[in-house]
Amino acid sequence: MPRQIPEGLQLPKIRATLQRMEETIVFYLIERGQFAHNPKIYEPGAFPELAEHEHWNKTWLEWVLKEVESSYAKLGRWHAPDEYPYTPIEELPAPVLTPMSHPKLLHPHHINVTSRIFDFYTKEIVPRITAREGNNVDYNYGSSAVCDCEVLSALSRRIHYGMFVSESKFLADPAAFIPHIRSRNTDALADLITKPEVEKILLRRIAQKSDVYGQDLDSAATAAGGVEKRRKINPDDVVTLYEKYVIPLTKVVEVDYLLERLDGLSDAEVEELCK
Amino acid sequence: MPRQIPEGLQLPKIRATLQRMEETIVFYLIERGQFAHNPKIYEPGAFPELAEHEHWNKTWLEWVLKEVESSYAKLGRWHAPDEYPYTPIEELPAPVLTPMSHPKLLHPHHINVTSRIFDFYTKEIVPRITAREGNNVDYNYGSSAVCDCEVLSALSRRIHYGMFVSESKFLADPAAFIPHIRSRNTDALADLITKPEVEKILLRRIAQKSDVYGQDLDSAATAAGGVEKRRKINPDDVVTLYEKYVIPLTKVVEVDYLLERLDGLSDAEVEELCK
Repeated sequence: MPRQIPEGLQLPKIRATLQRMEETIVFYLIERGQFAHNPKIYEPGAFPELAEHEHWNKTWLEWVLKEVESSYAKLGRWHAPDEYPYTPIEELPAPVLTPMSHPKLLHPHHINVTSRIFDFYTKEIVPRITAREGNNVDYNYGSSAVCDCEVLSALSRRIHYGMFVSESKFLADPAAFIPHIRSRNTDALADLITKPEVEKILLRRIAQKSDVYGQDLDSAATAAGGVEKRRKINPDDVVTLYEKYVIPLTKVVEVDYLLERLDGLSDAEVEELCK
Repeated sequence: MPRQIPEGLQLPKIRATLQRMEETIVFYLIERGQFAHNPKIYEPGAFPELAEHEHWNKTWLEWVLKEVESSYAKLGRWHAPDEYPYTPIEELPAPVLTPMSHPKLLHPHHINVTSRIFDFYTKEIVPRITAREGNNVDYNYGSSAVCDCEVLSALSRRIHYGMFVSESKFLADPAAFIPHIRSRNTDALADLITKPEVEKILLRRIAQKSDVYGQDLDSAATAAGGVEKRRKINPDDVVTLYEKYVIPLTKVVEVDYLLERLDGLSDAEVEELCK
């Protein structure tokens, strides 16, 4: 008899949540693309005043992340099981209200890939979505970094959400996973959770969303035709983001989570799961 | 000979900025609409823990505004001439970096309509964009309030931007404005800056943007036709927001700014403007 899967782990619900995140990501990328690259905000120690007043030797963006994530910490955001900040949680303040109690849907784990997201986002994605001719600096350091924080939060939630996919698939058929978890067979685990046809549909949908949301309706409404339509984002850039970074890193999260799925369980508990 | 108008005050540039803000507003409204109304976050004193730990007797939303605006204050956001926070500026921290120097485009003024924006947004707009059947509470108090902050910031910037419109039109023909400023003739001033045909085009464009950005591309992509398309926002709600609130309040800002436009100028300076 199939095990009862909790509502928050049912695949159609998880898929709807993941899809809804797509437009959030596309939109924040568009917002970031309004501003120039401003590479200085990604260079450690580039603002001497930050070192002087805040003893901060990392990048401006990481400082802004800490500030913004601190205000969210007071709201209890990082107690939600699908939210992972970039600043180490012990450097953030405690929530002011008693945190909302979230149903325990995931097995205890140590997964956190925010530093890898930070890396590909700042090195590979920002230069693409802000590409323009000439001097790529407009001095909007604050606005650029705030947009970066929004994109980074959305990417973190999207990629770590892979754990809910893993848990859902694991619960639907634990016996299929357990031998591979025990033998640390990451390829076999990846195969169990990968659906190439779902990925293809996802990439097509992402291209369509970027195409629709990236339209410039101002020039469309004012131009008398014949004028090349400006776009606010290039759909290829968003497809690349998903294809080269979001999907592969989600898979890492999914597999790493599975590798920890039996930790702390007794043999009897694992046997019970297989029934 | 027409006076030289600085680049930041040229009408086509101002219009492009105002239009770009439209999709930001539409998008944040859509983001807010994901969550339930959660009326408790708009009730003063509804969270006893806030009073206890933070000595805060106003609403949860105002507390979140203060927190989020404090982190932006450290980034210097409120030193920009087009940004007006909801929290009194003296309750916010100082910027950490030396604020970017902004060209002085506006005459010194005391305009701030954030409390009126807060009022119509929380009372009239939130209930519309979050309308749903049944119990309109999902306990996402933090997320709802963070989205509200984004909408409120975008509306504040949009509405206060009216001062740039006023200054631009004033500089183009000071002699037309000065007698009405001196006689406090607000109707005549409003007539000088109002273009009903521009407003009509704006409302059509807003409806179109809400229509395009509010599409649910997930159901469009998966439904096999015949299924009623779900929408993420009702374009009528966004048109109402602009027609009943944003446009009239922008006009108030524009006229109030003009009324202060000659303050501090000597008669000789005013005469020089008329030449």
